[in-house]
Amino acid sequence: MRQSGAISELIDALRCLPGVGPKTAQRMTLHLLQRDRDAARRLSEALHDALTKVGLCGQCRTLTESTLCEHCANPARDRSQLCIVESPAEVYAISRATAYKGLFFVLNGRLSPLDGIGPAELGLGALEKRLKEDGVAELILATNTTVEGEATAHYLSDMARRHGIRTTRIAHGIPFGGELEYVDGTTLSHAFDGRKDF
Amino acid sequence: MRQSGAISELIDALRCLPGVGPKTAQRMTLHLLQRDRDAARRLSEALHDALTKVGLCGQCRTLTESTLCEHCANPARDRSQLCIVESPAEVYAISRATAYKGLFFVLNGRLSPLDGIGPAELGLGALEKRLKEDGVAELILATNTTVEGEATAHYLSDMARRHGIRTTRIAHGIPFGGELEYVDGTTLSHAFDGRKDF
Ligand SMILES: [Zn+2]
Ligand SMILES: [Zn+2]
Repeated sequence: MRQSGAISELIDALRCLPGVGPKTAQRMTLHLLQRDRDAARRLSEALHDALTKVGLCGQCRTLTESTLCEHCANPARDRSQLCIVESPAEVYAISRATAYKGLFFVLNGRLSPLDGIGPAELGLGALEKRLKEDGVAELILATNTTVEGEATAHYLSDMARRHGIRTTRIAHGIPFGGELEYVDGTTLSHAFDGRKDF
Repeated sequence: MRQSGAISELIDALRCLPGVGPKTAQRMTLHLLQRDRDAARRLSEALHDALTKVGLCGQCRTLTESTLCEHCANPARDRSQLCIVESPAEVYAISRATAYKGLFFVLNGRLSPLDGIGPAELGLGALEKRLKEDGVAELILATNTTVEGEATAHYLSDMARRHGIRTTRIAHGIPFGGELEYVDGTTLSHAFDGRKDF
């Protein structure tokens, strides 16, 4: 598509969205500029707004508009249980599907040395400090069942053992290799309740 | 997904993109805010920039950053041939795949009375004025082969006949019901060259 600057800039920018290739980006661009300029305006502003307002929770690293997220700021949550997930989407999935009343810690990734993602990138320094000081009795590992998710679970399990903390892993009712965030609520709820020592 | 204002605003805004449902919008939002804030910033600015700079060509109604698009502003194009398409994507597709040297006219839609899209919405007043005054000898109908695209072609053919202008329709090598913009270049080129009186 031979294009003027601003149009091809927009096509390129849309290609950064997950799952969007060149044809789709072109289709989206024409849709926005031809048929739905209000949506384009709204999307531009929503992006700007979210970038300005949304950051990581200072305690659990989930996405939030406040210094602390709603879970960490809630004194009614059980601080003796800490559930480790890879992404904020999984905090929402578990909160929606289960009766879990503890806290979360979001890795925002998984250990992947080849991609340069080590303990520091996942905030594991702050996590270890918390295991040492914060009265955590059970560390629930809800990383995904991928090779890297499992390796991350083992790393965290070793860390917890050093501090004498019990580690559990949510049960493998979840299809292997599947992404936790897309599992149906019932399966996820059973897997969560059926978690075992790790 | 229970969400703060700015995050759920962004999810909603992304759902206006064609082909993006709630799950995909949530995935895109987390990707942008968690992993690729530069891309989010760039997309916000590209949208704003395109909205500011890109409008319709004053003569052919394709998307352009100038008063006249590159085709209409080019004195070397053959002004006796005028090709009617439904969308700017089809201007690019035909320019890329064929040796066509004439001009284009972009409907930015197709006749669809039930959706309130009539001749005025497609700029057919300006088109008729041009057929009357502008030395057009051949009107090439390249609307899509949908029911509405065919109805639009018939409407335009009647209009051309009133002004004694020859009308052609690109050949149906294109799969019926298919969207012209996604056809491979060879098929499109043959269909264009094999156009017949309509
Ligand atoms: Zn938090
Ligand atoms: Zn033009």
